[in-house]
Amino acid sequence: MIVKMKKNATKEHYNELTEALKNKHFEIKDVSSETVIIFGIIGDTSTLDINDLQAYEGVEDVIRVQTPFKQASRMFKEEDTIITLSNGATVGGHEALMMAGPCSVESETQLTTIAASLAKDGVKVLRGGAYKPRTSPYTFQGLELEGLKLLRKVADTHDMAVVSEIPSADLLEIFEQYVDIIQVGARNMQNFQLLKVLGKSSKPILLKRGLSATIEEWLMSAEYIMSHGNSQVILAERGIRTFEKYTRNTLDVSAVLAIKELSHLPVIIDPSHAAGRWNMIERLSMASLAVGADGLIVEVHNDPKNAMSDGAQSLKLDKFSQTLQTLKDLANSLNRPLL
Amino acid sequence: MIVKMKKNATKEHYNELTEALKNKHFEIKDVSSETVIIFGIIGDTSTLDINDLQAYEGVEDVIRVQTPFKQASRMFKEEDTIITLSNGATVGGHEALMMAGPCSVESETQLTTIAASLAKDGVKVLRGGAYKPRTSPYTFQGLELEGLKLLRKVADTHDMAVVSEIPSADLLEIFEQYVDIIQVGARNMQNFQLLKVLGKSSKPILLKRGLSATIEEWLMSAEYIMSHGNSQVILAERGIRTFEKYTRNTLDVSAVLAIKELSHLPVIIDPSHAAGRWNMIERLSMASLAVGADGLIVEVHNDPKNAMSDGAQSLKLDKFSQTLQTLKDLANSLNRPLL
Amino acid sequence: MIVKMKKNATKEHYNELTEALKNKHFEIKDVSSETVIIFGIIGDTSTLDINDLQAYEGVEDVIRVQTPFKQASRMFKEEDTIITLSNGATVGGHEALMMAGPCSVESETQLTTIAASLAKDGVKVLRGGAYKPRTSPYTFQGLELEGLKLLRKVADTHDMAVVSEIPSADLLEIFEQYVDIIQVGARNMQNFQLLKVLGKSSKPILLKRGLSATIEEWLMSAEYIMSHGNSQVILAERGIRTFEKYTRNTLDVSAVLAIKELSHLPVIIDPSHAAGRWNMIERLSMASLAVGADGLIVEVHNDPKNAMSDGAQSLKLDKFSQTLQTLKDLANSLNRPLL
Amino acid sequence: MIVKMKKNATKEHYNELTEALKNKHFEIKDVSSETVIIFGIIGDTSTLDINDLQAYEGVEDVIRVQTPFKQASRMFKEEDTIITLSNGATVGGHEALMMAGPCSVESETQLTTIAASLAKDGVKVLRGGAYKPRTSPYTFQGLELEGLKLLRKVADTHDMAVVSEIPSADLLEIFEQYVDIIQVGARNMQNFQLLKVLGKSSKPILLKRGLSATIEEWLMSAEYIMSHGNSQVILAERGIRTFEKYTRNTLDVSAVLAIKELSHLPVIIDPSHAAGRWNMIERLSMASLAVGADGLIVEVHNDPKNAMSDGAQSLKLDKFSQTLQTLKDLANSLNRPLL
Repeated sequence: MIVKMKKNATKEHYNELTEALKNKHFEIKDVSSETVIIFGIIGDTSTLDINDLQAYEGVEDVIRVQTPFKQASRMFKEEDTIITLSNGATVGGHEALMMAGPCSVESETQLTTIAASLAKDGVKVLRGGAYKPRTSPYTFQGLELEGLKLLRKVADTHDMAVVSEIPSADLLEIFEQYVDIIQVGARNMQNFQLLKVLGKSSKPILLKRGLSATIEEWLMSAEYIMSHGNSQVILAERGIRTFEKYTRNTLDVSAVLAIKELSHLPVIIDPSHAAGRWNMIERLSMASLAVGADGLIVEVHNDPKNAMSDGAQSLKLDKFSQTLQTLKDLANSLNRPLL
Repeated sequence: MIVKMKKNATKEHYNELTEALKNKHFEIKDVSSETVIIFGIIGDTSTLDINDLQAYEGVEDVIRVQTPFKQASRMFKEEDTIITLSNGATVGGHEALMMAGPCSVESETQLTTIAASLAKDGVKVLRGGAYKPRTSPYTFQGLELEGLKLLRKVADTHDMAVVSEIPSADLLEIFEQYVDIIQVGARNMQNFQLLKVLGKSSKPILLKRGLSATIEEWLMSAEYIMSHGNSQVILAERGIRTFEKYTRNTLDVSAVLAIKELSHLPVIIDPSHAAGRWNMIERLSMASLAVGADGLIVEVHNDPKNAMSDGAQSLKLDKFSQTLQTLKDLANSLNRPLL
Repeated sequence: MIVKMKKNATKEHYNELTEALKNKHFEIKDVSSETVIIFGIIGDTSTLDINDLQAYEGVEDVIRVQTPFKQASRMFKEEDTIITLSNGATVGGHEALMMAGPCSVESETQLTTIAASLAKDGVKVLRGGAYKPRTSPYTFQGLELEGLKLLRKVADTHDMAVVSEIPSADLLEIFEQYVDIIQVGARNMQNFQLLKVLGKSSKPILLKRGLSATIEEWLMSAEYIMSHGNSQVILAERGIRTFEKYTRNTLDVSAVLAIKELSHLPVIIDPSHAAGRWNMIERLSMASLAVGADGLIVEVHNDPKNAMSDGAQSLKLDKFSQTLQTLKDLANSLNRPLL
Repeated sequence: MIVKMKKNATKEHYNELTEALKNKHFEIKDVSSETVIIFGIIGDTSTLDINDLQAYEGVEDVIRVQTPFKQASRMFKEEDTIITLSNGATVGGHEALMMAGPCSVESETQLTTIAASLAKDGVKVLRGGAYKPRTSPYTFQGLELEGLKLLRKVADTHDMAVVSEIPSADLLEIFEQYVDIIQVGARNMQNFQLLKVLGKSSKPILLKRGLSATIEEWLMSAEYIMSHGNSQVILAERGIRTFEKYTRNTLDVSAVLAIKELSHLPVIIDPSHAAGRWNMIERLSMASLAVGADGLIVEVHNDPKNAMSDGAQSLKLDKFSQTLQTLKDLANSLNRPLL
């Protein structure tokens, strides 16, 4: 960390802070010039909070030069993390992985219809919401436990893995029973109590990026899970909030490149939530593969207009089959097959 | 709601959607012109989700013209909501209310020192964090239950009410036992499971605005709490994320005016988190009173540089006393006393 | 346009506004329900300003349902606009087009070296800044007229077209003499005086998207140029400002899809300014082609570390050659060759 | 400046960059630890561009620790800059200053009516737009030269100073003839050619903050004007773009505090453009005075609903008179009279 003192900071201010840091076993290296007093703090600064240092008198600015995450960092682990699911599918390895399914589980008929079609297409991971975090309390909130059971049953028929979003920590035991990948929704990305509990799970965690989260904050949330014991974290970019309203969110494809530089964790893209428009999914998926994402998670529905949520951004089954074929062709020409 | 159809939408597309809406007992009023097909949906549209309508073929855009919140709306309840705390202090009435205390409860000594000073200043509500949602897992996470007990004990000595942040739904019973106002942190503003549970509490809820939340989303979160049975919601503006990095967040004083137009709920301002710099607190508090906020929540500390969190934005006790006097003078000249 | 009246709006408020609109030959269609007073305004509403209508008493909200741009709209012209440059290269047609060159023209040696290498790679358009809009007055401001002359001379040697940024309207005559495509920089996207003047030019205009501009604002700036007589507008997405700081800006690939739906104008991508990091250019260019951009504009330099501007985001000549080959392969597999 | 090298940077990378800097007469101070290579650059780093340094191989990050602006900095000039207008009114001194007038000059009748009312209220500065930068080419573009002449004539009748927005550099001579303060609009804040030319003017410049500009960028634009010779710059905060759409922009009152820390220049607030709603102007003006702004610039109109622009955010004349009285009372209680 670098500390810049105020112009009017006194020798006492300087000494007070540097002594306190030395007492915590940090080394101080001064870089002051004639016009500015600056020093570096050497040591494991991940335990220091910028705001705490700024409370010292005379401090003007504190700048972090090392990432605050450790286990999530590529400095910590150089090779890519590859996560293997119960059915043998992998995320983060040579092949990119497709996950697909309805936004919400609505009925057994709906789910069996969709899963059968996906299975025929070769999809290995079934997504589906059982507990639905909706912005309005007056809209469909999900089938809850019933939904999880349906997901498990239907997925097992086709040897698919299940990914579904957990809404709160107390449901962990149930989720561990029914799903293969536990999803943390964008709005819960900084629900630290939930992250701590998931750190004790043996299941892989799909961590969605928060609506306005920076990449550093996202990786710090991964760090919460990892530092509590679970190193199987899959990151999912799903668009960030910007001033542009034509699309629901703005898909940040550069985030994939940034994650690959900063971290060893796999990162996939959710083009459905990013765009909020089904007719953009194919092209955004193509861009995602081209930029190097480790996979995709896409919403499909047998009957979008009667979907109980997010119909606008769901692909119909036949459209999905075509899209998947286009994506597989592209993936092959990129030398990274899509499973 | 207003639905605009695409240029190439067919009569069938139009009929399919309008029939579906009529079946749900909505009335359709057509406003089409020669160049564009548009119709209005008449009825209680809070049960309709924009995304669901957009899933219909031929739909170009769906625009909501009525607010999606009901109980939180001033249309629902015209007069201002006034919330009375256990010690008789009120929020939302003629007087503005000051809440103050440390970011984190750190020890009995710290808390008694601070509370004694605040009580002497006449402060009626003691804030303090027991469960701390920190962005890094490697920093102080709070005294937890011990912190809540300390808050209760110390507050009782001075007949103060206690406000503290709840991190997850399973702790509700404990919070109801020890605190008077249950705070929902900015990062949990859309933790809908938590909001639902708080809707069943008899305690007032202090709902912080999310880091990038719109006012509508914020009021929808209030609606979650209210629609589950708890109408005692206090809104707290704490700065929103913008591109400006000199301040930690950007205090949105206009939000107070917007809330007063849209809702009957009280709204207070947290200048400490907004600025992240203690030397801005006095002036931002003055602006908050001038714009018409129903109160303030301010971080103070007896020894900011040794604070275990957020020292940079905490006022020292004597500085707080002076600031409070300045604010009371201003409040009096604005004909709205500050308690 | 849709107008929603306030709950307490009177019959007089309603009549005053609707009569004023009828006097301007608009038709009024009422869509009011029991709880809300709403009406539609039928006619060419591009001449109406939302703010003007909101000045009427009793008005709560005014919502535009038709795009405010006309000539730039796909409603106005269905088929894609294809722009042919002086050397026969096209933008917006079957082939995607590569434009490349240094951020700033620095010397004849620099420019000849770069252009020779690009020409060997088959690049048809040479970019280069002569008048440099820098955020600091203390950094290199460009070779100005001398730079334009060098661009023309060097480009002519290789039958390349020239694109360069115009800083102000008074330089139009000079730019028309030396360049083939006149670029409007992101910071000038809403310099309306400049746009009006460019509307009278016979040269194609490359209109960069503003740092925080919405797609609608961007197309309105294109409309300024088109409504003054110049229909040859090429749009260039170059990343938008977001909270993420790891990349200089966030490349908005979805904008290409949105532009293709809303407008007939060609749209290219500038991955260099978007990322601000040369090592992301290849992958972002791949994503750009995959999403369907009509071309790319890339910064290259023979000696990035001694570049007088933007060295960090410039590709070296040999790296560019390799990248171009990778992109051409991808373009071919997408059935849209890159020239 | 602080430079952090990549983990895999070699000794050669390090030497190449540090030698280049030493050749430019900068001093290098190393602060490397075991895990990270970092050094400080000592000297006048305002001539260095971060992007240029990042072009060197092995560089991971470059962090500026001194502000890139000089003449605009409080480090450069400690005492507040006070600007005296032709009629003796001052900005930045003990008294706060009110500027008011219509968004657009529309006719002699309109302007005389408004100015007479403002003069009776004691307002010393008349604002009015003659050249209007509108987002749509199809809306009123201003009376242009005729408008400037009217402003001068009407203002002279009441010994008022005139402030009006300049759209492009070629009009400087005309503006110098007719106005007392030349305004740079938000959309032109980074029109560097315009700023350079204004640096040669003897008139004070009112520099509006760009829609998404950071405070540093805003001060760098002031620096452009100052470094070209004109030190009379008044900054005007007018709201920044955020995700909140209930208000047109979000008024950033903290910006006043930041400017007062970083710079000696006066800063005023434009509540009309910030809110876009006339009924918020009074309260936002109160907050502006409370936070310590050096003045206000407010839109008024004798007949808002027939205004040719921005009627929604204009106060009627009698409402303005009342508001001004309220503001003067508040200003007096704050011990900073409003003129």
